[in-house]
Amino acid sequence: MKSALGLTEACELIQAKELSPNDYLGQCVARADEVEATLKAFTVRAKLADLQNQSKPGPLMGIPVAVKDIIATKDFVTTNGSPIYKDFTPKEDATIAKKIRSLGGLIFGKTVTTEFAWRHAGVTTNPWNSAHTPGGSSSGSAAAVASGIVPLALGSQTAGSIIRPASFCGIVGYKASFGAVPRAGAFPVSGSLDHIGFFTRSVKDAVFAFNLLRNTEIDEEDAILIPELHIKPISMPRIAILRTPFDDLLSSEQIKTVEIAATRLSDAGASIHELTLPQRYWDGIEALAVLMSCEAAVIHEQHLLQSRDLLSNDIIELADRGNACPSSVYIKAKNLQRELRTSIGKYFENVDVIMAAPATGEAPKGLDFTGNPIFCSLWTFIGTPAIALPVNQSSNGLPLGIQLIGNYKEDEKLVSVAAFAEDCFRAS
Amino acid sequence: MKSALGLTEACELIQAKELSPNDYLGQCVARADEVEATLKAFTVRAKLADLQNQSKPGPLMGIPVAVKDIIATKDFVTTNGSPIYKDFTPKEDATIAKKIRSLGGLIFGKTVTTEFAWRHAGVTTNPWNSAHTPGGSSSGSAAAVASGIVPLALGSQTAGSIIRPASFCGIVGYKASFGAVPRAGAFPVSGSLDHIGFFTRSVKDAVFAFNLLRNTEIDEEDAILIPELHIKPISMPRIAILRTPFDDLLSSEQIKTVEIAATRLSDAGASIHELTLPQRYWDGIEALAVLMSCEAAVIHEQHLLQSRDLLSNDIIELADRGNACPSSVYIKAKNLQRELRTSIGKYFENVDVIMAAPATGEAPKGLDFTGNPIFCSLWTFIGTPAIALPVNQSSNGLPLGIQLIGNYKEDEKLVSVAAFAEDCFRAS
Repeated sequence: MKSALGLTEACELIQAKELSPNDYLGQCVARADEVEATLKAFTVRAKLADLQNQSKPGPLMGIPVAVKDIIATKDFVTTNGSPIYKDFTPKEDATIAKKIRSLGGLIFGKTVTTEFAWRHAGVTTNPWNSAHTPGGSSSGSAAAVASGIVPLALGSQTAGSIIRPASFCGIVGYKASFGAVPRAGAFPVSGSLDHIGFFTRSVKDAVFAFNLLRNTEIDEEDAILIPELHIKPISMPRIAILRTPFDDLLSSEQIKTVEIAATRLSDAGASIHELTLPQRYWDGIEALAVLMSCEAAVIHEQHLLQSRDLLSNDIIELADRGNACPSSVYIKAKNLQRELRTSIGKYFENVDVIMAAPATGEAPKGLDFTGNPIFCSLWTFIGTPAIALPVNQSSNGLPLGIQLIGNYKEDEKLVSVAAFAEDCFRAS
Repeated sequence: MKSALGLTEACELIQAKELSPNDYLGQCVARADEVEATLKAFTVRAKLADLQNQSKPGPLMGIPVAVKDIIATKDFVTTNGSPIYKDFTPKEDATIAKKIRSLGGLIFGKTVTTEFAWRHAGVTTNPWNSAHTPGGSSSGSAAAVASGIVPLALGSQTAGSIIRPASFCGIVGYKASFGAVPRAGAFPVSGSLDHIGFFTRSVKDAVFAFNLLRNTEIDEEDAILIPELHIKPISMPRIAILRTPFDDLLSSEQIKTVEIAATRLSDAGASIHELTLPQRYWDGIEALAVLMSCEAAVIHEQHLLQSRDLLSNDIIELADRGNACPSSVYIKAKNLQRELRTSIGKYFENVDVIMAAPATGEAPKGLDFTGNPIFCSLWTFIGTPAIALPVNQSSNGLPLGIQLIGNYKEDEKLVSVAAFAEDCFRAS
C-alpha cells in the first residue's frame, strides 16, 4: 500500500511524461484486481481498455478517480446503495463527475456506499483487516484510496461519512466548508447537511483535488465560492483540543492518539489549548438528526410509497421520524444551524484549528455497523471544514488518527495547519 | 400632493445648495402637521429641531425617510405594530436604518404597520380618501410618501405589502430581488419571504434609494449582492401580460387599467404578449402560506406563551396553522421555492418583464381589511423583483396601477422597463 503514488505525484509524473497514463492505469487496475475479491470497494469498475481510450490532456490527465455510488455517472449504473436503483444509469454526470472528466480525469469505478449514504452497510471491508468495517457511508471510496488502487476518491458526509472512514482506513479525508464543493447530481441524504469531499493520501493531494473540483459558480442556493487554497508555511499554529460531553465513548487508544498528536504538535512549535463548548453547541447534534430525518422523509417519500419492500428498516425508521416531526422543530434546527455557523467564529479568534477525535476509536469489528459518527456531527451541522489525518495504529494494527476543524470558510488556514500536523505525525 | 419634491430632486437641490436642509425639513414637517390628524401614517415622529440638528453631509443629506415600524431604530420606540412592543426601544438600528443615517439621511418617524406586518390593520387612512385603506402591511409608509410628507419610505413585503399599498396610494413601490436589501434588525414575518423595499414618487427615485441602501456585503445566508442599477434606455421592451387562475377577483376597472397600460406601452413601441403559467407555479401561492405560517409559528412562540392576550386572532391563527404543519409540508414548500426561482427564468428568455395587476382593484373601503395580496404572492414567493406603477384613477377617484415583474436578480432590466413604462403612463 505504501508504494502507491499520491495524486499530486502521479499528476506531476504524467504531466512531465515520466509516467505513461496507460502504464499508470494498468498498475491501478492490477492493484484492484489483486485486492478486490476481499476488499469489495467497487460496485462497478471501468475496463482498462475503456480508461486508456478516454485519456486526454488536462491537469488530471490519466488520473483514475473512484466515485461514491450516490454520485451520478452517465456511463455507470448509479445504485445509490439501494436495490431500487440497481439498474439505474443517469442521463447526465453529476457536476463533479463532469469536472473530473473535463480536466482529463477518469472515472475508475463506482464505490460501495451504505444504502442512500445512510446506515445500512455495504460489503466493503477494511483494507487493514477485512474483519473490520472500513467505516461509512463512503466505505468503498475510503478503502479504494487506502488500498492504493486510486489516488483520489470522492465521498460525502452528512454526519461523519468522510472523516470517520478516512480515519478507520488510515488516509486523509477532507470535507471543505459547507457549500464549497458541487453537489448537483449527488443523491441527497439531507440538503442542509450534505458535503461532497475527498479521500487522498496526503493533505497536499486533498488541496490539489479541492482546487480543481471546488465550486466555481453558484449553481444552487447553498453553494459558496472558496478561492483556490494554498498551503501556507505555519510555524506556531494555535490548536484547541476539544472536550465533548460524550468523551466517555472514546477508546483509551483513541484518547492516547489525541494526546500523542498534541505532544508531537507541541514539540514542533504549536501551542495547545483545551476547548469546551456551551451546551447550545451540543444541541446541534440533535438538530442534525432533525434536519436529516425531516429532509430524508421528503427525499424518500416516493421510495416509501412505491418500493417500501426494497428499503432497509434504517431508511424507513429515518423517514418515519422525519414524517412525525412538526415544522416548528425543523425550523428551529435550521435556525440553530445558522446561529452556530456564525457564532462558532468566536472560538477561532484565538486558535487556528480545533483538534478532536474523528471517531470513537479504531474501526469496529464486523461489517454491519460502520461506526458512530457523533464526533463529526457537530462540525457537519455547522458546516465548518474538517480534515482527518492518520497518526498511529491500535494494538490490533488498525489506523487511528485525529481530525482538525477550521472556521467556516477558513479552509486555507485549516489545510495549512493540517499540512504542518501531517509533517509532525509522519516525522515521528 | 403633486408639488412635493421627489427623492432625487430633493437630493440634487440640497447637494447644489439650492435648497437648505432645514427649510426642506420644515416643509416636510409642515405637510405632516397638515395631514396627520386624518392620515395617521406615523406612530411617532422626530421633532423638527432634532432633525435639523442631525443634518450632516452625505448623498442623503437632509433627506427625511419614513421607516416602517418593524424596522429597529435606536431613538424611536419600535412597536412592530403590536401592544407587546408598545414601549420597546431597540438598542441598535437595523442595518438599513444605520445605512440611512451614515449617508446623511434622517429618520423622520416610524410608520404604522399592521400587527407584526401581518393582517391586523393599523389606523392609517388612504391619502386619496380617508374612508379607504391605504393597503398593508406597509400602510403608513405608502401613505407618507403619497401625501407628500417624505420622498422616501421603507416598507416590507412578505406577500404583497409593498406593491399593493403603493398601488392603492398611487405611488411607486419597489421590491428588489429577494436578499438584495438588508433585513437585519427588521422584525421578521417569515425569513424565507421577507423583502425590505421602497416607496417613492418615481422609478428613478426607487433606483436611487436601492443603489444607496442595497446589500453591499453578505451578512446573512439569504443575502445576495446586486450591483448598482442603471436605468438603461429601452426602445422596444418585450412585455408579457400575465393571466392568473384568479383573474375573476379583478374589478372591471383594474382589468381596464391593465389594458390601458398595455395599449400605451404598445403605442410607445413595446411588444405585448400574453402569458399563462403552469399550475406548478400557482402552487407557489399555497406554498407561500405554508412558509409564512410555519416560520411565524416559531417567531411568535414566545409571544403566544407569554402574551397571548395581547395578540390579535390573526396572529394566533397564523401561528396555530404553522404549529399544525408537518415538517415535510414545509420542506416541500422550500423545495418548490428553490425550483421556481430557477425555472421562472425560462419565461424571461423572450420577454423583458411580466406585467400584472398589483391588486384586485382600487383600495377597498374601510380600514379593517388592507386588501388581498394574491396578485403579488407568487412573485414574493419566488423572490423576483417587482415594481408598482400608478396608471390612472378609478371612478371613485382612487389610484389604479400595474406591477412589473423582472427575472430573479435582473433588477436592472426591470427598472429600465419600468422607467420606460412610467414615461408612457405619465405622458398620456
